Amino acid sequence: MLDPAIRNHIDARRSEQLERLLELLSIPSVANVQASPDPCETCAAWLADYLGNLGIEARVAPTAGKPAVLAATPHKADKPTLLIYGHYDVQPPDPLELWASAPFTPEVRDGYIYARGANDNKGQLFAHLLAIEAYRATGTDLPVNLKLLIEGEEEIGSPNLEPFIESHRTELTADTAVISDSEFYADGVPAITYSLRGLAYAEVTFTGPAADVHSGLHGGALTNPLNALAAMLAALHDAKGRVTLPGFYDNVRAITDAEREQWRLLPFDERQYAASLGVDALGGGETDYSVTERRWARPTLDCNGIVGGYAGEGSKTIIPSHAGAKISMRLVSDQDPENVITALRRFVSDRTPPGIRSRLDVHATSRPVMLDTTSPAMRAGKAALAEAFGKEPAMIRCGASVPVTELLQRMLGLDAVLMGFGLPDDNLHSPNERFKLDQLYRGAAAAAAFMQNLAG
Amino acid sequence: MLDPAIRNHIDARRSEQLERLLELLSIPSVANVQASPDPCETCAAWLADYLGNLGIEARVAPTAGKPAVLAATPHKADKPTLLIYGHYDVQPPDPLELWASAPFTPEVRDGYIYARGANDNKGQLFAHLLAIEAYRATGTDLPVNLKLLIEGEEEIGSPNLEPFIESHRTELTADTAVISDSEFYADGVPAITYSLRGLAYAEVTFTGPAADVHSGLHGGALTNPLNALAAMLAALHDAKGRVTLPGFYDNVRAITDAEREQWRLLPFDERQYAASLGVDALGGGETDYSVTERRWARPTLDCNGIVGGYAGEGSKTIIPSHAGAKISMRLVSDQDPENVITALRRFVSDRTPPGIRSRLDVHATSRPVMLDTTSPAMRAGKAALAEAFGKEPAMIRCGASVPVTELLQRMLGLDAVLMGFGLPDDNLHSPNERFKLDQLYRGAAAAAAFMQNLAG
Repeated sequence: MLDPAIRNHIDARRSEQLERLLELLSIPSVANVQASPDPCETCAAWLADYLGNLGIEARVAPTAGKPAVLAATPHKADKPTLLIYGHYDVQPPDPLELWASAPFTPEVRDGYIYARGANDNKGQLFAHLLAIEAYRATGTDLPVNLKLLIEGEEEIGSPNLEPFIESHRTELTADTAVISDSEFYADGVPAITYSLRGLAYAEVTFTGPAADVHSGLHGGALTNPLNALAAMLAALHDAKGRVTLPGFYDNVRAITDAEREQWRLLPFDERQYAASLGVDALGGGETDYSVTERRWARPTLDCNGIVGGYAGEGSKTIIPSHAGAKISMRLVSDQDPENVITALRRFVSDRTPPGIRSRLDVHATSRPVMLDTTSPAMRAGKAALAEAFGKEPAMIRCGASVPVTELLQRMLGLDAVLMGFGLPDDNLHSPNERFKLDQLYRGAAAAAAFMQNLAG
Repeated sequence: MLDPAIRNHIDARRSEQLERLLELLSIPSVANVQASPDPCETCAAWLADYLGNLGIEARVAPTAGKPAVLAATPHKADKPTLLIYGHYDVQPPDPLELWASAPFTPEVRDGYIYARGANDNKGQLFAHLLAIEAYRATGTDLPVNLKLLIEGEEEIGSPNLEPFIESHRTELTADTAVISDSEFYADGVPAITYSLRGLAYAEVTFTGPAADVHSGLHGGALTNPLNALAAMLAALHDAKGRVTLPGFYDNVRAITDAEREQWRLLPFDERQYAASLGVDALGGGETDYSVTERRWARPTLDCNGIVGGYAGEGSKTIIPSHAGAKISMRLVSDQDPENVITALRRFVSDRTPPGIRSRLDVHATSRPVMLDTTSPAMRAGKAALAEAFGKEPAMIRCGASVPVTELLQRMLGLDAVLMGFGLPDDNLHSPNERFKLDQLYRGAAAAAAFMQNLAG
C-alpha cells in the first residue's frame, strides 16, 4: 500500500504542479530543429532547475547532439538504486493547421492536456517528478537511491545516447530502471510492455538530370527520378505484404504459442481500431498475421515522406532533377539494424536504373528489445500499476521504439520496467497530442508505489 | 529577299528594343499564382500598350482565367490575313536557388538574355513584335493584315482558350497562323515543327488515416498512403517502358518510313544529348524505339511531383495521412486525352487498396496535333527561315504541347506554321532559362520575311 501521506500530497498539489507541467510543455524542444536560443537547451535547463529545487543534485550534460539531464540522490547502501529514464524532446508539430490549439501553447480541455509532448514524453516523465516531489515536500525519506537520465534526442532515434551511456557508466549504474514512454493497452487496461520494436531509418535520393527539365521536350528520353523511385519503393513489398529485402526475416523470432494465447484474450475490436484512425479498413501488413501480431511482433517497412518535383498548386510539366524518400523499418528481435540497412543499401543500388545516381543516408538505427518478464522489478511494477489503477496490468508488446531500453539492457545489464501511463488515443506524433489528467495523477501514484515496492 | 529598310531598322534599334523586352521579362506572369495586383494583368496591359504605341489597335480581353491580348490592323481585302499567336505567361521559376541571376531580374550575359520567359514565350513572341515595329517605324506598309492573339495560360495547359476562341471566332479568322513557341533542331539548324504532342495532366491523391500517425504504434496494421501510391505509380509502366493503361496505345499513329528516314539523317549524338541534361545514360522510355522517336512520336507518362509525409530535415516516424502525385502524359496523334484520363481514373480506382480513399483531379488536357507540311504558308515559312538563318530548315516534330495549335486547326481550320527561334539548350521550364540575342534578331528578320513571303 502506498504511503497515504504521499498519495494525499500528490492530490493536494494538483493545480500547482499542473502549472509547472504546462510551463515545460510550452518549450518547443524538437530535437531536429536548430535555433538560437536552442529550445532543447532551455528545456534541459528547466528540468535540471526543477530537480534542483527538489534538492536533487542535477546537471545538464552535453552530448554530441542535444544535451541530457543527469540527476542523483546521495547513495545509501541499504537502498536499491533506481534509474528513471525520460526524454524531453518531442516530435515536430506539423501539420500545424490540424491542431485545435497551438502545439506549444498547452491547453487543458475536458480533463486532458493538449500539447506536443503532453504524453510523449514530458507528461509521462512528469508523473515520476510528481512522485519525487511528494516525497521531498512531505519530508518522507525516498525508498530508493534515485538516478535520472533525461535525454533530448529520443524522437530522432537517440543517435548520441550509446556513447553517452558508455562515458557515464558509473553515474548510471543501478539495480533497476523504469521508463514511462509506453501506453495502456486500452483505457482502463493498464499494461507493462516487455518488448519494443527497433528502427532502421534511411533516406534514399535518386538524382537524374542536372536540373528540372521540360517533360514535353525530354519525356521518353530520360529516366524520371520520381518514376524510378516509385518503382524501387513498390518493389520493397510483395503481394502478401512481406518486405522483399533479402534476408529481412532471417532472424525474426517466432511469436510463442503462449503470447498468441494471451493476445487473443485481450479485448480488440478491429473495426473500432480502424475507426479511431479514420480509415474504413486496415491493411498494409503481412496478410498471414493478425493485426496485433503485425503491430507488436512483426517487422514493417514504411515510407514516411517523399519529396520530388513540383509540389505547388496546379501543374508544372517537368521531369524533376531528383526525388527522395524517407524509409523506416520497424524491427523485431533478433533483427540487426545494421544488416537491414546493408540489405536496403544493396537493394537500392541494384534498383538504380541507368541515368539515375542514388545515395542512401542513415538517419537512425536502434535494436529491438525483449525484456525479462519474471524479475522482482517487474513484479514491483505490476503491483504498483494494480494499486494505482485498480486493475492487474496486461503484459503486452509495443510496435514503437524506445532506443534506450535496448541500450540499458545491452550496456548496463538493466531490463527496464516499461510502465506507461498514456492511452492509445493520445494522438502520439500526430496533431492534438494529449494526456489525460487522471492518468497523470494516478501515474504519479504508481511511480511512488513502484519505488516503495522496490524497497520491499 | 527581305526589304533592306526593315532589316536595317531591326539592327539599328537593337539596344532600344532590348530594354523593352527586359521590361516585359521583369513581370512575373506565372499563370497559376494568385496575387494582387495580378502580374498577368500587368503583363497583358503592357503588351496592349506596346502594340498601341505601334498604332495597332489592341485590347486586353478577359477569359475565365488570365486575360488574353487581342490586336488587329484594319482589314484590307488585297492582303492575306496573318494571325500571330504567343503567350505571355511563364513557368513557375522554382527552384530559385539554382538560378545564377534572379528569374524576374533579366540579365544579359555572353550574348544571352537570362530570365524566366526569356525564350518561352516572351522572347520568341518579341521577335514578331520587332518585325512589326520595324514596319511601323519605317513607315513601310505591312504586307499582311495582322491579327495577334497573346494568351496568359499556356503553361497551365490553356484551360480557357477553347471557349475564348469560340466566342471570338470572327476576330480571329485568318488565312494563316504563325507560332514561335518551338525551337531549332540544333544551334545552326533551323526547323519547322509539323507535329506536337498533346497533354493529359492529373493529380492523384491517396488518403489513409485521418491524421499522420505513429509508424511504430500502427505500422503493419494500416495501409500507408505513400507505400500504396508508389505501388500504383510503379504499375503504370511495364519492364519495357510501356505505359500499362488499358487502350493507351490503341490510336497511336505509326511513325512513317519517310519520317524515320528523315530523322535518321539529322545529326544526333546520344552521349552529347545525355551530357547536356547532366545524366550519364538515357532511359525511361519504350525500349523498342529510338530516343528521337520516343521524344517526338511516342506517348509518355511522367510523374511531375509527389507530396506526402514528412519533407523536412532528418526523420519523422509517421504514416502520413495522405499522399499525392502529379502525373502527366504526353500524347500523340490520334490519342484522345479524355479517353486517356478515363483509363487513368479506372486504373487508379482499381489500384486503391483497402484503407485508402483516392481521388483524381484533372489539371489540363490538350490534343496532339499533326500539321499539313505542303501548304503555301509552310513554304513561306521555310523560305523565311532559310533567308534569315542562311540554312534550309529541317522538318521536325516536337514532344512538347502548344494547345493553341490543335485548337486553331480544329476550330478555325488553320494549320499554323510553327517557326521557332529558340535553341535546345535554352533551359525551358528550368532554372537559368535563356534566349540567344542573335536568335532574337534573326528571328525578327525571319518574322518580317515570313509576312513578305505570304504576300507573295
